[in-house]
Amino acid sequence: MQEIRVGIVGAAFMGRAHSNAYLDVGSYFQLDAPVRMQAVCDTDADAADRLSRQYGWLSVETSWEKLVKRDDIDMIDICTSNKTHMPIAVEAARAGKHVICEKPLCMNADEAKQMLNAAREADVRHMTAFNYRRVPAILLAKQLIDDGKIGQIFHFNAVYYQDWLVDPNFPFTWRHDVKEGGSGAHGDMNAHTVDLARFLVGEFHSITAAQETFVKERNKPGGTKDKVTVDDALYFMARFKNGALGNFMATRFATGRKNFLRLEIFGSNGSLVFNLERLNELQYFSRMDASLSQGFRTIMVTEGNHPFLNKWWPPGHIIGWEHTFIHEIGDFLQAVAGQIEVKADFYDGLRCQQVLDAAVTSAVEQKWIDIPNA
Amino acid sequence: MQEIRVGIVGAAFMGRAHSNAYLDVGSYFQLDAPVRMQAVCDTDADAADRLSRQYGWLSVETSWEKLVKRDDIDMIDICTSNKTHMPIAVEAARAGKHVICEKPLCMNADEAKQMLNAAREADVRHMTAFNYRRVPAILLAKQLIDDGKIGQIFHFNAVYYQDWLVDPNFPFTWRHDVKEGGSGAHGDMNAHTVDLARFLVGEFHSITAAQETFVKERNKPGGTKDKVTVDDALYFMARFKNGALGNFMATRFATGRKNFLRLEIFGSNGSLVFNLERLNELQYFSRMDASLSQGFRTIMVTEGNHPFLNKWWPPGHIIGWEHTFIHEIGDFLQAVAGQIEVKADFYDGLRCQQVLDAAVTSAVEQKWIDIPNA
Amino acid sequence: MQEIRVGIVGAAFMGRAHSNAYLDVGSYFQLDAPVRMQAVCDTDADAADRLSRQYGWLSVETSWEKLVKRDDIDMIDICTSNKTHMPIAVEAARAGKHVICEKPLCMNADEAKQMLNAAREADVRHMTAFNYRRVPAILLAKQLIDDGKIGQIFHFNAVYYQDWLVDPNFPFTWRHDVKEGGSGAHGDMNAHTVDLARFLVGEFHSITAAQETFVKERNKPGGTKDKVTVDDALYFMARFKNGALGNFMATRFATGRKNFLRLEIFGSNGSLVFNLERLNELQYFSRMDASLSQGFRTIMVTEGNHPFLNKWWPPGHIIGWEHTFIHEIGDFLQAVAGQIEVKADFYDGLRCQQVLDAAVTSAVEQKWIDIPNA
Amino acid sequence: MQEIRVGIVGAAFMGRAHSNAYLDVGSYFQLDAPVRMQAVCDTDADAADRLSRQYGWLSVETSWEKLVKRDDIDMIDICTSNKTHMPIAVEAARAGKHVICEKPLCMNADEAKQMLNAAREADVRHMTAFNYRRVPAILLAKQLIDDGKIGQIFHFNAVYYQDWLVDPNFPFTWRHDVKEGGSGAHGDMNAHTVDLARFLVGEFHSITAAQETFVKERNKPGGTKDKVTVDDALYFMARFKNGALGNFMATRFATGRKNFLRLEIFGSNGSLVFNLERLNELQYFSRMDASLSQGFRTIMVTEGNHPFLNKWWPPGHIIGWEHTFIHEIGDFLQAVAGQIEVKADFYDGLRCQQVLDAAVTSAVEQKWIDIPNA
Repeated sequence: MQEIRVGIVGAAFMGRAHSNAYLDVGSYFQLDAPVRMQAVCDTDADAADRLSRQYGWLSVETSWEKLVKRDDIDMIDICTSNKTHMPIAVEAARAGKHVICEKPLCMNADEAKQMLNAAREADVRHMTAFNYRRVPAILLAKQLIDDGKIGQIFHFNAVYYQDWLVDPNFPFTWRHDVKEGGSGAHGDMNAHTVDLARFLVGEFHSITAAQETFVKERNKPGGTKDKVTVDDALYFMARFKNGALGNFMATRFATGRKNFLRLEIFGSNGSLVFNLERLNELQYFSRMDASLSQGFRTIMVTEGNHPFLNKWWPPGHIIGWEHTFIHEIGDFLQAVAGQIEVKADFYDGLRCQQVLDAAVTSAVEQKWIDIPNA
Repeated sequence: MQEIRVGIVGAAFMGRAHSNAYLDVGSYFQLDAPVRMQAVCDTDADAADRLSRQYGWLSVETSWEKLVKRDDIDMIDICTSNKTHMPIAVEAARAGKHVICEKPLCMNADEAKQMLNAAREADVRHMTAFNYRRVPAILLAKQLIDDGKIGQIFHFNAVYYQDWLVDPNFPFTWRHDVKEGGSGAHGDMNAHTVDLARFLVGEFHSITAAQETFVKERNKPGGTKDKVTVDDALYFMARFKNGALGNFMATRFATGRKNFLRLEIFGSNGSLVFNLERLNELQYFSRMDASLSQGFRTIMVTEGNHPFLNKWWPPGHIIGWEHTFIHEIGDFLQAVAGQIEVKADFYDGLRCQQVLDAAVTSAVEQKWIDIPNA
Repeated sequence: MQEIRVGIVGAAFMGRAHSNAYLDVGSYFQLDAPVRMQAVCDTDADAADRLSRQYGWLSVETSWEKLVKRDDIDMIDICTSNKTHMPIAVEAARAGKHVICEKPLCMNADEAKQMLNAAREADVRHMTAFNYRRVPAILLAKQLIDDGKIGQIFHFNAVYYQDWLVDPNFPFTWRHDVKEGGSGAHGDMNAHTVDLARFLVGEFHSITAAQETFVKERNKPGGTKDKVTVDDALYFMARFKNGALGNFMATRFATGRKNFLRLEIFGSNGSLVFNLERLNELQYFSRMDASLSQGFRTIMVTEGNHPFLNKWWPPGHIIGWEHTFIHEIGDFLQAVAGQIEVKADFYDGLRCQQVLDAAVTSAVEQKWIDIPNA
Repeated sequence: MQEIRVGIVGAAFMGRAHSNAYLDVGSYFQLDAPVRMQAVCDTDADAADRLSRQYGWLSVETSWEKLVKRDDIDMIDICTSNKTHMPIAVEAARAGKHVICEKPLCMNADEAKQMLNAAREADVRHMTAFNYRRVPAILLAKQLIDDGKIGQIFHFNAVYYQDWLVDPNFPFTWRHDVKEGGSGAHGDMNAHTVDLARFLVGEFHSITAAQETFVKERNKPGGTKDKVTVDDALYFMARFKNGALGNFMATRFATGRKNFLRLEIFGSNGSLVFNLERLNELQYFSRMDASLSQGFRTIMVTEGNHPFLNKWWPPGHIIGWEHTFIHEIGDFLQAVAGQIEVKADFYDGLRCQQVLDAAVTSAVEQKWIDIPNA
């Protein structure tokens, strides 16, 4: 492969974040095959055109069906709304394209299985874009866990707090419609923490959930209102297969919290605390420290021996949120070029979706649900 | 009443903390009737004697039955293990003594009702010693909520993290025996957060719980082991009557956390965050602040206009954990002297117990439980 | 000695803080001779009477000259304004009384020498009440330094920030008159940080200072104004004899800071950061930690193996500002009873005063000043 | 102007950081004339070549004299070592090129004047690359100050702490040779804080400094050692023309601090605290808040109404250190295109240099130095 020619579908927020990554990735990753920003596709032609001009995409499409069949495309990047992930991914895989797809992988586990099967049958590389797996502090946490520094994990407590729906005058959008978005805070936010839980602790055993919609109706253009059919917040408790207890809370009504994803992991040898609002830091407590001076350390994850940091600047210089996409796309491009194996793949997307689905069921039926084996 | 003559039952940790309060309270509270440290009672005569000498209790008893009938006693302070709270309180009330009782109020809601009835019938003052209600920062939180600064409360998320059982060699004690302690982390720790939830948000509607015992057996003296029959950790999710979602986690396996009771309260106008390890601070976010400069404020709750602070030192001087007992006992003595009305009383203790009981049931039966109306 | 009979001079803020300590000390320290709160003295008879009633002082005096000669007094505690420290201490020592004196020890190094000489000639125990030496976190810092965990100290940077003079309508008091107070923020606040520097780093070599008075005049009762003749803020840079660089800033114009005394100590093996507003915590960085996970630890200095903590509560319970006085007076009473040797004594008070004096001179003369050898 | 054709000199760390900015700037700034990465120049041809390939510079030079005269270049970006800034900038200006130059602007104020004069005479745009002026939180601080939210500034206390020289085995480099670098920590680090002081507070009146070299000799290749002739740390105190007191400490021996640039600004109406290690946050205290709930707020400077943030992502997504370069270069390119006026220019570089020079003189002569008027 001489170049990796990318076609991206979806020119909104995620399309922008991924475009930024394609622009920069070649300067920071050793790619055996350089990336070529071949085509951007959006049903909104203006949006596609704008993104093309902003980042230098070489061509524009308005039909993903057409895009995935172009023979000057090697890889499809799916940044559309959740509802369309499955058909695009399946068709792309069938057309022999490698596929990276935004999270949550799709609308439910059935769709996820179709995507996984299609990718496996086509023998293409596939990735679910859980970008927070590639926050350096999260990778450092993983490394400390794998090295035994945390020991047996007792607790994995995650919150994802945002507040942009607190204002009751925030208008009704497709995100408030269960048919379009699948769920509200839950799918968007718990998708991240569920994946991080699987990455750091292991598989889920069972869960029980509760959800709430605090603002029942929202304004539509023209003075009408529409009923909000998704959750504003969804909490769930979990048991992991290894015996750990888990707790997950996602809400868009956490007034004052902007992008506050906090993990608290307590184990027999030590503990870890992470917060996305301070993504360059990891807090670590070790029971192996001298008893007189034990305490939670704030590790500045900005040193040359920390994951991904040697690609960037000298020690002490913080990176931003968007770097997680560069890391993820850098790794996926290396996988496409055959340089490395890469996770999280569609299997991980499926496993996450099973937990998300169970939470929705549990919230409705008000009972514990076992997570199926894959 | 010329003096308030106190008899304390229980000479262990709580007996000490209360004794310290009786020693100091007269220097900081305007009491119409001064307190007299009349008698300390413990079935362990040595322990009673030691406490008597440490704090100046004027006499020593080993039988609480005898103590509660002494006619030179006006008020009984119960600091014994949970199992004995009910009989002592009931007998003390019947003997016409005012009663303050450590939390949790007793072993279950039935006992709590007996205690409440006995106190009401005897028309004595009664208090459940939820000392964290009298942390100045908690009272400031209450004031901000009552003033509408938080608005409609969406979320009340509480954790109580300790780590002193992480060591598997920590020995078996009565606290690990469900017959003696009633529950493990749950009754001791969730009792506090449940009461704070009722104080700050209101009554519970329903809950669902999960519990775990991570270390199944512990060593006893003599080389034998015994089975741990209480929870090491208990999580529960809650719905409040006013529509808020609640989350509660108590654990003694939160490695590195010593006495970490954190509240996160999110409302339509603002938010509050509190942590007992920094009990002189309250974090407050206001949506009414200018949009450019909104953020969580760390209020140093050490100023003269903050609750209870004018009794202590000039602005800027922090108080400690033990001050909460002085505040609580100061208020109760004022109630006994007829100066003020006082909460939390046995009714509050009962209401808390109903939630605690429901959590235990839910953890066993793995389903949602409605909290009864009192 | 069967009892230690204390006479305290000065019934204002410090008189209160010390009284609280005498009330509690016997419950927490093993004293070979118990303390007896024999007499309180203040030229303001009402103030003395109030303090007597608040804390149970057994008698009241209005003349310190008379107090120090009473033969039912073993020890004098000086809590008056700085100007009167020297004569009281000298006369008390000459009368054979042990003396503890509030900081700063006096008005200048000459006075300090007289006090030290008087105490030495009378062979009485003497202490300068630098209470922050007995903050457990400070003692832990000292222990880590003495154990070599910090190594060669490069930097000792101290600030003491308060804000109670920012309001230009705060009235003129004796504290604004150089003849009464000696200096403003400097003597009161830098006295603490200079002593902590000597305690933790060692002796000073030389310094250079700058001071400022931001509000030049303040209101007096009756509508007149008076000129402020003391500093509102005084900064100085220092060289220590061991080669470390030092920086000290004291100000009462640090808007928002209430009692913010921060130390930053950087050494060849590690570092320490402390803040009095969070006096139960110590931050510690170790270069000996594994390179991947180095970071500043927040040590909760609330465990049983931490200095003084075993006297108080089980692990995890924070203490307050006033406890530092109980520690200090507990230690001094043990010294008086012959149980231990005790520092900081008048020699330390003198050495501190020499640095404070040099700073005042330097601020006026705008040049570096060498600190004399004692 | 149809394009802005940039020639960059210096292919080391700063050359990389600027290259990244040129790569990305067009995607985030509305430039009337797009940027063209025309040429990279370094006396080390390999380094220039590597940078060219990493970021797509279109040509390579090894002689800056040649580069500045090329007529296909509109603008020169100087990222070389300090010693060469002046001649390059002067020649570039004389050749009619716009010039952006890394900080510190040069070796001393005389050089700075030559640069400023050359730029003025040639009527080209000029900028000193004080990138921290374009941290969003710093711009928000500036806005709050300009809006009167801080009031009269009493104190501006800055530290810049790093620790990469603590290891005595870190080798001797040109940075340790006063003839090559001009100074050590001082010029590199205090240059930033001095510029921020001028930006936020105003002009300096006078200063006094102290410096230290903790490791006197360092190893050179081949087993020899060389004497370190620059400072490892330089402290200075300052008076500003508006009456504020200033304090500045720069050190590379602050063990555990990686890139810790902290500002503390205290004023009559409020206060600000900033730390570069958490550059997406600004702490703000307002005396105008209700007295009961005053406290330092942590503003997440990640919202759409914050400076530069609307160019990036939706609210709540943090940016990294490198973004400050994109902001700075984006603004300079807009200035070159005639869209805006831009600061900090060479005049600001000169004024900063005068303070830096005075500090060096003061550290040697151990006395206060007045800062000249420009």
